[in-house]
Amino acid sequence: MDIEVLEGIYDANEKIARENRALFEENRVFAVNLMASPGAGKTSLIEHTLKRLKDRLRMGVIEGDIASSVDAEKLKAYEVPLVQINTGGACHLDANMIRQALEHMDLGALDLLIIENVGNLVCPAEFKLGESLRAMILSVAEGHDKPLKYPLMFSDSQVLVINKTDLLGLGDFDLEELRGTVRRMNPGIVIFELSCRTGEGLQEWADWLEETARASLRHES
Amino acid sequence: MDIEVLEGIYDANEKIARENRALFEENRVFAVNLMASPGAGKTSLIEHTLKRLKDRLRMGVIEGDIASSVDAEKLKAYEVPLVQINTGGACHLDANMIRQALEHMDLGALDLLIIENVGNLVCPAEFKLGESLRAMILSVAEGHDKPLKYPLMFSDSQVLVINKTDLLGLGDFDLEELRGTVRRMNPGIVIFELSCRTGEGLQEWADWLEETARASLRHES
Repeated sequence: MDIEVLEGIYDANEKIARENRALFEENRVFAVNLMASPGAGKTSLIEHTLKRLKDRLRMGVIEGDIASSVDAEKLKAYEVPLVQINTGGACHLDANMIRQALEHMDLGALDLLIIENVGNLVCPAEFKLGESLRAMILSVAEGHDKPLKYPLMFSDSQVLVINKTDLLGLGDFDLEELRGTVRRMNPGIVIFELSCRTGEGLQEWADWLEETARASLRHES
Repeated sequence: MDIEVLEGIYDANEKIARENRALFEENRVFAVNLMASPGAGKTSLIEHTLKRLKDRLRMGVIEGDIASSVDAEKLKAYEVPLVQINTGGACHLDANMIRQALEHMDLGALDLLIIENVGNLVCPAEFKLGESLRAMILSVAEGHDKPLKYPLMFSDSQVLVINKTDLLGLGDFDLEELRGTVRRMNPGIVIFELSCRTGEGLQEWADWLEETARASLRHES
């Protein structure tokens, strides 16, 4: 009797993530995995990014949710290619879900793909999707002590967007302490401070994202 | 050759949860499993609850975190029995972690035990701990659309605490819509609205918790 040795769940995910990555590179698509707690502002940041960049880059969005299509409904107005993944209970996206979503997208017609992960500061960090960039949002309302409590997300992301800066001063959020903690854990991380409500800081984020995507796509061509 | 059939992970958890529950009942301890997203205010609510109830009930706290003891450090000042669980990466507490924590607590000396779960609106809802009460917090900063996106937590909790009501009016949070959605999913849920920052609504919460704990303990005796 043959005994089949199953690959570990992370190894299997890693393999599919590499295949997704190869697909993105072949098609010259810059893919962003956007992660955050529930309500930190993932969908709002995507909306503002679409407003600023959808006429400059050919954009698409994959929306990941446990249930519902509330977020995808909001994004329909922007008329970009949009695929909704419902994880049916699962607390994160994985590479296989992305592979299936990509069957419904024409990658040849895209430059920049934003993947909104499930709202969760823990599990999404453990599953690579094949993305070109790992970006996370922390909302000022969540508090500055989060890096110590959710270290993997903060040490593994390449960009940290601090959202809801309009709430600074209302509580005891210490921006300097946050920046210091995150930089000790992850010296290379790029940090943006912005407010999707007031618009402060959004243009800098959009400019940087456009430039980073273009530089990566040039490199791949 | 004997083949050992392993129990499913949920069944195994369920069994240990029942044993924990039996321990709580034997010792007449009312145990609250407090769940929420990162930064929704779990530790703050525990602090305010300790201030109001620790001289009226014999209280203890189990602090669940992925890493760090930031929250436990804050609670030391209240001088109640306190055990820190570090999950070492895991995104939720499970019944076995609680069983191990209980080995370090004198349950006979407690009336009310609050268990602060890992900050996560998804996975903790799937793992019963043996608790007497499942309570969740939603912060106004997270938005009123969360029940549709994270349905298990909202439909499985017996109490919803809406925290940071001082932020109402700053954004587009619709309290009526939230209440309606949650009640359709979970008609029996008890809802509190409060602000740990201003103190509004905290006494109603503490009074209700004390009364509920006492009623349950009388019933068990």
